[in-house]
Amino acid sequence: MKLSVGDSVSIKKSFSQEEVLAYAKASGDTNPIHFDVEYASKTTFNKPIVHGLFVASLFGGLLGTKMPGMGTIHLGQNLKFIKPVFVNEQIEATIKIISVREDKPVIVFENTIINENGEIVMTGESVVIYRGPVFQK
Amino acid sequence: MKLSVGDSVSIKKSFSQEEVLAYAKASGDTNPIHFDVEYASKTTFNKPIVHGLFVASLFGGLLGTKMPGMGTIHLGQNLKFIKPVFVNEQIEATIKIISVREDKPVIVFENTIINENGEIVMTGESVVIYRGPVFQK
Repeated sequence: MKLSVGDSVSIKKSFSQEEVLAYAKASGDTNPIHFDVEYASKTTFNKPIVHGLFVASLFGGLLGTKMPGMGTIHLGQNLKFIKPVFVNEQIEATIKIISVREDKPVIVFENTIINENGEIVMTGESVVIYRGPVFQK
Repeated sequence: MKLSVGDSVSIKKSFSQEEVLAYAKASGDTNPIHFDVEYASKTTFNKPIVHGLFVASLFGGLLGTKMPGMGTIHLGQNLKFIKPVFVNEQIEATIKIISVREDKPVIVFENTIINENGEIVMTGESVVIYRGPVFQK
């Protein structure tokens, strides 16, 4: 796969309450804002929101399966959580190549997530290394 | 809760193959390095590794339940994935306050994860805002 600055891939997804509960349990982040409708109604968000780092998993998914794809090793990630992502809300995550090093296969991606209203809810930057489908010994 | 520079909390955890599979499905990151023992044996890692962003969920868990705790809103996160974290390997995540703004309740944490050999496997920085247990309207 030839990787060039400007190349991008996207995915649409909504996180179910069941997925958010499983993530809450695995991560230990059982903050009720993520699943307690009554508690959430008292907050500025009004309803349960997905954990920001769980939403960001979509970037990992795009990197690890679409571009560069299998064999990609994630080296670093920056994230800004700009607006809440609600449980069951459909969002679209995009990763776009902003640099490819010449001396070794290190690639930097700009990341964006938008909601159904077209608002940017998250931005970020991923740094990966990609030596092909098998990151060989 | 009085929050001061230098305060820290930690948690120990290992990620089971079942948890990693559930995360792979929810995130779409079905890269076989996370669950395919035969594929992993051909790579530099030798065995399945946990998704870096899933490991980082421990920082979210500490922030959202321990310090500052319920009501914490995650604003930003930086991460460096330094070494792999293997499935079923016990690790310890720590968050430590490095700054507390005077004008508004924005707190910056330094994050570290070490493995059982005491090696640093991940570092990062979290920015949060904390207005108390209910992030009120």
